[in-house]
Amino acid sequence: MTENRDQLCINTIRFLSADGVEAAGCGHPGMPMGMADAAYVLWTLFLKHNPHDPKWVDRDRFVLSAGHGSMLLYSLLYLTGYDLPLAELQNFRQWGSKTPGHPEYGHAPGVETTTGPLGQGFATGVGMALATRLLAARYNKPGHTIVDHKIYAIASDGDLMEGVASEAASLAGHLGLSEIIYLYDDNHISIEGSTDLAFTEDVAARFRAYNWFVQEVDGYDLSALASAIRAAQAEGERPSLIKVRTHIGYGAPNLQDTSAVHGAAMGEAELNAAKQNLGWPVEPRFFVPDEALSTFREAVDAGARAQADWQARFDAYAAAYPELAAEFELRMHGELPAGWDADLPAFADASKPLSTRKASGAVLNAISPNLPALIGGSADLAPSNNTRISGQADVNTGAFEGRNLHFGVREHAMGAVMNGLALHGGFIPYGGTFMVFSDYMRPAIRLAALMRAHVVYVFTHDSIGLGEDGPTHQPVEHLAALRAIPGLTVIRPADATETVAAWQVAIEHDGPVALALTRQNIDIQDRTRFPPAAELAKGAYVLVDADGTPDLILIATGSEVEVALAARAVLAEQGVQARVVSMPSWELFEKQPQAYKDAVLPPQVTARLAVEAGVRLGWDRYVGLQGGVVSIERFGASAPYKTLWQEFGFTGPAVAEQAMSLLGKV
Amino acid sequence: MTENRDQLCINTIRFLSADGVEAAGCGHPGMPMGMADAAYVLWTLFLKHNPHDPKWVDRDRFVLSAGHGSMLLYSLLYLTGYDLPLAELQNFRQWGSKTPGHPEYGHAPGVETTTGPLGQGFATGVGMALATRLLAARYNKPGHTIVDHKIYAIASDGDLMEGVASEAASLAGHLGLSEIIYLYDDNHISIEGSTDLAFTEDVAARFRAYNWFVQEVDGYDLSALASAIRAAQAEGERPSLIKVRTHIGYGAPNLQDTSAVHGAAMGEAELNAAKQNLGWPVEPRFFVPDEALSTFREAVDAGARAQADWQARFDAYAAAYPELAAEFELRMHGELPAGWDADLPAFADASKPLSTRKASGAVLNAISPNLPALIGGSADLAPSNNTRISGQADVNTGAFEGRNLHFGVREHAMGAVMNGLALHGGFIPYGGTFMVFSDYMRPAIRLAALMRAHVVYVFTHDSIGLGEDGPTHQPVEHLAALRAIPGLTVIRPADATETVAAWQVAIEHDGPVALALTRQNIDIQDRTRFPPAAELAKGAYVLVDADGTPDLILIATGSEVEVALAARAVLAEQGVQARVVSMPSWELFEKQPQAYKDAVLPPQVTARLAVEAGVRLGWDRYVGLQGGVVSIERFGASAPYKTLWQEFGFTGPAVAEQAMSLLGKV
Repeated sequence: MTENRDQLCINTIRFLSADGVEAAGCGHPGMPMGMADAAYVLWTLFLKHNPHDPKWVDRDRFVLSAGHGSMLLYSLLYLTGYDLPLAELQNFRQWGSKTPGHPEYGHAPGVETTTGPLGQGFATGVGMALATRLLAARYNKPGHTIVDHKIYAIASDGDLMEGVASEAASLAGHLGLSEIIYLYDDNHISIEGSTDLAFTEDVAARFRAYNWFVQEVDGYDLSALASAIRAAQAEGERPSLIKVRTHIGYGAPNLQDTSAVHGAAMGEAELNAAKQNLGWPVEPRFFVPDEALSTFREAVDAGARAQADWQARFDAYAAAYPELAAEFELRMHGELPAGWDADLPAFADASKPLSTRKASGAVLNAISPNLPALIGGSADLAPSNNTRISGQADVNTGAFEGRNLHFGVREHAMGAVMNGLALHGGFIPYGGTFMVFSDYMRPAIRLAALMRAHVVYVFTHDSIGLGEDGPTHQPVEHLAALRAIPGLTVIRPADATETVAAWQVAIEHDGPVALALTRQNIDIQDRTRFPPAAELAKGAYVLVDADGTPDLILIATGSEVEVALAARAVLAEQGVQARVVSMPSWELFEKQPQAYKDAVLPPQVTARLAVEAGVRLGWDRYVGLQGGVVSIERFGASAPYKTLWQEFGFTGPAVAEQAMSLLGKV
Repeated sequence: MTENRDQLCINTIRFLSADGVEAAGCGHPGMPMGMADAAYVLWTLFLKHNPHDPKWVDRDRFVLSAGHGSMLLYSLLYLTGYDLPLAELQNFRQWGSKTPGHPEYGHAPGVETTTGPLGQGFATGVGMALATRLLAARYNKPGHTIVDHKIYAIASDGDLMEGVASEAASLAGHLGLSEIIYLYDDNHISIEGSTDLAFTEDVAARFRAYNWFVQEVDGYDLSALASAIRAAQAEGERPSLIKVRTHIGYGAPNLQDTSAVHGAAMGEAELNAAKQNLGWPVEPRFFVPDEALSTFREAVDAGARAQADWQARFDAYAAAYPELAAEFELRMHGELPAGWDADLPAFADASKPLSTRKASGAVLNAISPNLPALIGGSADLAPSNNTRISGQADVNTGAFEGRNLHFGVREHAMGAVMNGLALHGGFIPYGGTFMVFSDYMRPAIRLAALMRAHVVYVFTHDSIGLGEDGPTHQPVEHLAALRAIPGLTVIRPADATETVAAWQVAIEHDGPVALALTRQNIDIQDRTRFPPAAELAKGAYVLVDADGTPDLILIATGSEVEVALAARAVLAEQGVQARVVSMPSWELFEKQPQAYKDAVLPPQVTARLAVEAGVRLGWDRYVGLQGGVVSIERFGASAPYKTLWQEFGFTGPAVAEQAMSLLGKV
């Protein structure tokens, strides 16, 4: 390449991005303009990808953690030949375009993950790197390297300020994930002004403390950039952070190095001046010189060659290791192996109570041998979450053959790493913590829902029933708060048998699933007397009906189902016939046909009492204005759980009393 | 002190704590046993406090960030003479005790903040240190030092793994908050086993990179501990982290240095063996030698003397600076100055639309001169959140006279720092971010609600109405998720005039308040035609009634109120008489007498349509099974907001159509 052609290509990125923002009238021109050089070096000299097969499994992943600079990514995707026409760039931020304000997974091809909420891309990339390392450990064989790619990202100062990135960086350094090569866009500017206002830490020293390989380069010295990336590729022990000193809004004569160019269109005058400043034609907008385009488009042939080369190697591998190759392909296609659920436990012995967390642990251990894609762990609560797969090794520095991940006390990074594992492909990740700490990872849960990432949250200790740890550890608002997230399926099984069914749904699902599980032991329902637990898949079902037309419907979830059953017995003694509905999942129930819903909750039966050890919020949908909810409208308390059940009114007699009151019989 | 007495006192702490856990049958003995020595040194040689006046304003604050070690704190509080009798320690983790599983603000005296969720205490302490520094900058005068105290904490490896602590540490280092002296209980054990499983970063180097003064000491070398604390006290430029190498469960012959002693009672045999091992009588349980008690109780006289000395200094200060002294006292008592609301803007000109975020900024700027306790900022979105107080300086390294905080892109730390500012006393903190990012700070919001901390969240960009930034930035589930938190008051004003009323409620409230504010301009309602905006304080009110008995009630919040008004006009043309209820706050409405609620939402009017650009969850409570909700049950999209309003059905005609359908008239 000549220097002129480099600049031509770089300015093509720079001004495509700026023109996109200007056309939309809003967006973030500063980052793409500042980082165009680094992005050019990365994408033309290093990134292994095939624009014509964006799902090629051995591609490098590129994550734009600084998602607000989306036009940078869209420009690169268009220029290198992805199925993203120029018209889409011209339609930036418009209804129905593939170019939303922040990159969204599933819109433009080549967008590996949804970014924008800062820190998420950074941490999700760590999950992708972990996926790469885990797959390499299982599938690569001497002379057969079929998993061999890097995770590149561009991260901003905002990314690095976010706690989730700190957590993920510490974990990545601990694990020595040298697949990671992140460019830090060190432009000294945040929205409120200079980063000196709030961010003066020594980033390089911090990352070295995490066991990262840190380099510092000038963002406009192309050979220095290339050398740094090359050194990062050669580094075998540590993740890499390349601190790239840039100037936000590079080239804009009045706005460069100011926060004004971060998050708003520059205005025509300044944009034109920037173009003139860098020797670029003011018109036409979205100008792409042929020479630049042909340079970028070399990625198409190069990508096809790289993939063909890989395919040949994979074919040889498949000949040598047919079973492993088949397993690899199945996993990378996101398909479940036949018989994955062959060994699900039955919990047929209803004589002894069992916590659903323990039941969940038993399920996990039963299915994992048949389901190599299943991997996970806990945010340092594995013994409490029952998330450990026994007989399997720990994943740790230098040891990636095992199945047990240790996330540390890093719920948020866990959530994002799970997203990265799922997005990379090859994994159904699960992650455990106490349900109350779902708050810590909520932004990652939201992104999983938005991306429909197939991940399973194992949230144990799901109510005041956890007892003595007290209100700081007792979720009361969390079922409601999780149910509020569109696209997240929340399942709160009523006993061990429903826990089996819940895992079955979770594994066969195509988006994120949150399991809410008890700490305390609860009854196992006798499925020889009750309908099969597989009814859970419908979200709600009649567990035991009234004798005759119900006077009342008791609707309960999780550990409160046994309370509802006890209340039903008390009511029966008083001549009140109650139906008990187990309702483990609102989301699954809402997917049922109206006729089924009406069969479970007949409209004519308006005396309905929901029983759930959490806030009422949302239950009115099922109980109506005439109904009632035995709920908790305050924070919990520290005491043995049986005391709490008494004090908060979650006993058969107390619920029966509420029911009688609802019926006007008290 | 003699060495024997030291050990006697230390073992008193150690075994009081272990006995408390053993009596409860659950809890966390390991940390108190390991950190008893360090705690003893800190509390007997350094901590400035008055057990008989736990609210003395110039006391040092002690934060047990590793809240699971609560028995350590309870032991210290009892021993040093706080109003926490031994019987409360014996009643650890029981219903109604002052000694819940994790320390809770407002239960035992001397508990400065609620801890347990890891990282929170660490970050809240940063807020307390900031409070100290800010008050010192305003009130201390040459020769008159009335604000002069430290923030001590004990933090665990779990605290340091959490992102919120990383964020707060970076901020504290940036600001140079040398008031902070934290002891890091470096015991090498986490719940899942050795910290080598997940946490091998160089903590000391990381904190040095944040600009902290880091020391490392043996946790059982009392003179080294004292020297380190003394050096930390002498450090004037940086916060201090003292890495204290300890052994979890110190003294337990079989369980020391194992995760088994972290979170479960040791069992009688091991506890007895530990006592014998350290020369402690096995019986009685909760043994407190007289000599130990009298040593600890020296804190009572010492504290009284320290406070008397301070009081004398404060009296001299009050004589020299009577106005400042009066202001200081008012603030530290949490009282509002007379006339704080004298300059509230009126927004009487209804001719021009205005976003409620801008209205909020105007209110903030109007009230801040009269309300010196009000301080805040944004997580790097001040220009968008309109949180800046103009004419006031930035708070930054070495500059604490201003009123504008810069939290950086650290929402979670912002939430915890706000809690620390409020708990320290003297401040009504506010903090801004986009509403969607309330997820990032949710654990801190929850603690604010649990503690009833008086803080104000300025959540702008409160719906898809923010437009092009797209679904990653558009809250749809957040109003529901915030309403789910007990004790949090959520207010979504309908226009600029309600924004004024919302701030008035927020300032006069006694717990956390979240304001949900628009990015986009919306109509200012003409209060000469409509009821006064002060009606907002009732949570909901009839904005404009039907002509005659309502055929239908339209209930709306925030920016959807103008949509409901438009729908009302469309319906009127079709002969349908609709009442429009503005419902800015469910929590405030629920506090009203039933008669008022029935007046606003008459039970006989069952045709009710709620209009809110978010999920339906919870609205059924107000619309019933016969009602409807114009809601959003998916994530948003990236497009200009007027397009989004159209596409998602938030226009007068679209809502009117839904209303007609509800009435069976379509």
